[in-house]
Amino acid sequence: MKNLNLKALFVGDKAENRDFYENQMSRLVNEHMGWREDYIPSDMAAISEEDKEQPDFIATKDHVLDVLDDLSQRMRSGSIPWQSAGRYWGQMNSETLMPALLAYNYAVLWNPNNVALESSMATSQMEAEVGTDFAKLFSFKDGWGHIAADGSIANLEGLWYARCFKSIPLAMKEVYPDKVAGKSDWKLLNMSVEEILDAVAKLSSDEIDAVKAASSRSGKFINQLGKWIVPQTKHYSWEKALDISGVGLDQMVSIPVRSNYRMDVDKLEEAIRDLAKQQIPILGVVAVVGTTEEGAVDEVDKIVALREELKKEGIYFYLHVDAAYGGYARALYMDKDGEFVKYDDLAAMHKEYGAFHYPVKLQEDVYKGFEAIQYAESVTVDPHKMGYVPYAAGGIAIKHKDMRNIISYFASYVFEKSTTTAPDLLGAYILEGSKAGATAAAVWAAHQVLPLNIEGYGQLIASSIEAAQRFRDYLGNLTFDINGKTIEVYPLNHPDFNMVDWVFKEKGSTDLKEINALNEKMYDYSSYLDGSVYANRFISSHTTFNQSDYGDSPLPFVEKMGLPESEWEKEKQVTLMRAAIMTPYMNSDKLFDFYTKGITQAMQKKLTEILDSESK
Amino acid sequence: MKNLNLKALFVGDKAENRDFYENQMSRLVNEHMGWREDYIPSDMAAISEEDKEQPDFIATKDHVLDVLDDLSQRMRSGSIPWQSAGRYWGQMNSETLMPALLAYNYAVLWNPNNVALESSMATSQMEAEVGTDFAKLFSFKDGWGHIAADGSIANLEGLWYARCFKSIPLAMKEVYPDKVAGKSDWKLLNMSVEEILDAVAKLSSDEIDAVKAASSRSGKFINQLGKWIVPQTKHYSWEKALDISGVGLDQMVSIPVRSNYRMDVDKLEEAIRDLAKQQIPILGVVAVVGTTEEGAVDEVDKIVALREELKKEGIYFYLHVDAAYGGYARALYMDKDGEFVKYDDLAAMHKEYGAFHYPVKLQEDVYKGFEAIQYAESVTVDPHKMGYVPYAAGGIAIKHKDMRNIISYFASYVFEKSTTTAPDLLGAYILEGSKAGATAAAVWAAHQVLPLNIEGYGQLIASSIEAAQRFRDYLGNLTFDINGKTIEVYPLNHPDFNMVDWVFKEKGSTDLKEINALNEKMYDYSSYLDGSVYANRFISSHTTFNQSDYGDSPLPFVEKMGLPESEWEKEKQVTLMRAAIMTPYMNSDKLFDFYTKGITQAMQKKLTEILDSESK
Repeated sequence: MKNLNLKALFVGDKAENRDFYENQMSRLVNEHMGWREDYIPSDMAAISEEDKEQPDFIATKDHVLDVLDDLSQRMRSGSIPWQSAGRYWGQMNSETLMPALLAYNYAVLWNPNNVALESSMATSQMEAEVGTDFAKLFSFKDGWGHIAADGSIANLEGLWYARCFKSIPLAMKEVYPDKVAGKSDWKLLNMSVEEILDAVAKLSSDEIDAVKAASSRSGKFINQLGKWIVPQTKHYSWEKALDISGVGLDQMVSIPVRSNYRMDVDKLEEAIRDLAKQQIPILGVVAVVGTTEEGAVDEVDKIVALREELKKEGIYFYLHVDAAYGGYARALYMDKDGEFVKYDDLAAMHKEYGAFHYPVKLQEDVYKGFEAIQYAESVTVDPHKMGYVPYAAGGIAIKHKDMRNIISYFASYVFEKSTTTAPDLLGAYILEGSKAGATAAAVWAAHQVLPLNIEGYGQLIASSIEAAQRFRDYLGNLTFDINGKTIEVYPLNHPDFNMVDWVFKEKGSTDLKEINALNEKMYDYSSYLDGSVYANRFISSHTTFNQSDYGDSPLPFVEKMGLPESEWEKEKQVTLMRAAIMTPYMNSDKLFDFYTKGITQAMQKKLTEILDSESK
Repeated sequence: MKNLNLKALFVGDKAENRDFYENQMSRLVNEHMGWREDYIPSDMAAISEEDKEQPDFIATKDHVLDVLDDLSQRMRSGSIPWQSAGRYWGQMNSETLMPALLAYNYAVLWNPNNVALESSMATSQMEAEVGTDFAKLFSFKDGWGHIAADGSIANLEGLWYARCFKSIPLAMKEVYPDKVAGKSDWKLLNMSVEEILDAVAKLSSDEIDAVKAASSRSGKFINQLGKWIVPQTKHYSWEKALDISGVGLDQMVSIPVRSNYRMDVDKLEEAIRDLAKQQIPILGVVAVVGTTEEGAVDEVDKIVALREELKKEGIYFYLHVDAAYGGYARALYMDKDGEFVKYDDLAAMHKEYGAFHYPVKLQEDVYKGFEAIQYAESVTVDPHKMGYVPYAAGGIAIKHKDMRNIISYFASYVFEKSTTTAPDLLGAYILEGSKAGATAAAVWAAHQVLPLNIEGYGQLIASSIEAAQRFRDYLGNLTFDINGKTIEVYPLNHPDFNMVDWVFKEKGSTDLKEINALNEKMYDYSSYLDGSVYANRFISSHTTFNQSDYGDSPLPFVEKMGLPESEWEKEKQVTLMRAAIMTPYMNSDKLFDFYTKGITQAMQKKLTEILDSESK
């Protein structure tokens, strides 16, 4: 909607909307209770008033109260105040959407299980709609999607898809050699997903089952499928996925990142051509849209263009986009009809919707990266990150709905008959089994309130990107005078998304070890390690770029801080403060000024303590 | 506690405890809101009263209300009334525990993420305590556990453990051949988990990392590790697990079940000896404690005894117990100090706690099966099944805490330093990544209220087992007169746990096809397929035993119904109604009589409609 006000969607840093939340919570609980009361009213109640007067009933109730007291004390003393409008600048956490919270709390009273329609008629349908939303978000015309436990599971599922598909032609050769007669193994290992789907579509149901049985699910072929290519800075979930899937870490090829922390597509091309020369196939390539440490957006368009070019030479790879973090940001580029708008029309659309209140330039190369996601075969997208939905809610979308039949555990004749969007037994199509219908209700409610385009999520993501830009600019102008010493701040200049990294550094220091130690200490003082996080006036996160993962990509940044290359060579790592900016409130001058004053003071105090304790 | 009253733990079939739920919900929400309000009180609120008066704020709020209305309508029309005290006899679903619901709905307001301690100090600690509870439940003196997304994921993790361990000796041979000098591959492939842990403990940190890197996580050795043995009636999650893990379905060996639906341990021994003769190792064996279709409990004790015997001959296998469904029932055998009581003392203990109000005989062979779980290497146990906790909450326990270091993604020196129970980065020790801290809070609260022994869960499980026994006895005495035709009821006699299966059958009929059709129709009339499940007065589930999965194990039951073997040979399947009895209320004569009268009438009506429509 054009007249969207994000402030009406959250409980509020100071519980400003608590009345709304409490009233709606109470209304919904009432409706559920009424539903129970009205169920066959002539039935005998299992719990009588007399029961409630029994000493053991009262004792049990009191015991529950004690447990809830303990719970409450633990939660209040052991939680992070990331609802704060401007004091929490750390992990990918913030307030979550009230409609998602309310929907969860309501739906959980029925405890639906989306593994099968039989146990979750309402929420299975919601999950099917959410899946369609994901497919549309990535412009998959014929796509499908579902909610996953988390991004690691969705990534594993993406790799599972790639592994299964890559093995299908080899399985066809084994089971029905006539059907692939004249095709070399190399050719079979370089068939596209579409070509494989076409080939499978020509088989009978029984033939499909036989080919599936001989595919990688049998345990065969897995070590012939080739390399899984990831950016050098990959999330550790990719190592786990290679391990768990049996593909193996030996098949992992890491591509260096450039100094903008995006995968170096030239190096990618080089690696692929080198492998092809040795007749080593490429199982797949992972592009990351929103790296967890830098918020970098890989140039998916260039990877797709490379694939087009290589296809002509008979080389194909599966493309999975790990957009666990960045996926929802594609909504910023979608008009209200779900069309990906032209770059030249973007500014006008954002202006029309009042998306930004501060000069924010959306770079064209990032735009192109997002646009090209539509050419990937599968995409991880986590509602519990930029969907502002509570944990645990990951997600995955696939380009062609039919792809799911290749990994499914139904006899083929079943899916031939099926015409609905929601499979009756979702568990047979996905990695997981039982799953909370309440999660589907939460994501569904969030998507209903905020469509995945400029009318909804686009504006929420815009506010976070704007806050990040403001924060970067603020940090760039920040210096501290600590008893005569000057501490400077160096933000990493990588405005692909809403992540901000920076380094505190004593002016003139060229000692990287010392600088790293200062930032480690700042993290200790600005996180749960401080002991009393509730009273802490600036809370943040941190990260380390080390040479083994990053190569020399951090070197230009290190040099920008005035350090010689030798320091980098000596320390081989740089520690940065790190903030995924998710607060939905920091798009107002008044609030931003108030809170940046507050956190500047808090930083000053921390730096003073650190330097004081050092000089002792 | 001795004076436990289960009726105080649930909202109630007729919302009898709604006041308690609503008051506590409201109290907890208040406490959360107060926590927000009190956070640095001098900070500026992000949402002002003026903001709330803006037309776009009001429009957004109204939009949220519309979505919540839609949600409420969908939930109420598309949910199953399994809170009913006695009309729902179907899937593994029932009321869930109030403390778990309240804890979830409270904790979710902070949205903790248990992937890392940094984001969830309170709930990570709770998950560690829950893990300890799991380990104690299975008498793992040195064990560990955690919450998993669901049972399928926990099963996959169990297989992952087995695969990693089995490959470690081969990896040692590759990397440090001297350390395993003189040991044949056969010997290396038959080392126990304890022997492997001992061998690893002798390595330096760097050596451990090198061995881990060369283990199955590399992609190597996987097809040398041997067979994964499951009961023929295995849940389809085992096929998925073999597929996903790269071990492959070709490595699956299915062992027939006996007519009591337990794995035939003689056949298991035969299969293992046959494989050993061919020098094919056994990767692992899965015993099932609580099969999803029959509630059967495998004779884990006999499998363990077999393993002991085979060990002497140099044959070893990893043992995973899939107790996703039955795991919590071990609490019924544990005294208040967490000791597994002697069989002869069981009845007295149950009497002391008033566990049963009906003659229930706990069979000794089932007792022994539960007892022997302590010798397994890993166990799946789902809080969202017999833990009466909302979805999604699976779980896994491992016998030795150190086992987790073999699959972990930390450099070894990190876990050498770690002394806490809760790893700082749980995501590096488990299959998943981000996970809801609220789930940990829910399971933790349930465990605090109901300890995992006779003082807590033992009594809740007892009520469900008692209800199942009552239901079996009721069905056995049931006949219907439908316009002159007599319909008999044949319950499957398999009282291992709380699952009841049965068949409706026209007296004198020897036509299995017709009998199957009648039960299929009864299911259609007694499930979501009926259209109006809220008005349906008897709701149930169904299952099919077919020859390909069950062999001829159903034959004695088919013959008991008076059918000749030839009918079984012709149809090759039998359709049964199926009910996991979870209602906590059916341990009272008054309620049981009331509801069985009600559902008998409902069955009579359905049967009449079915037979009438057939005779037309």
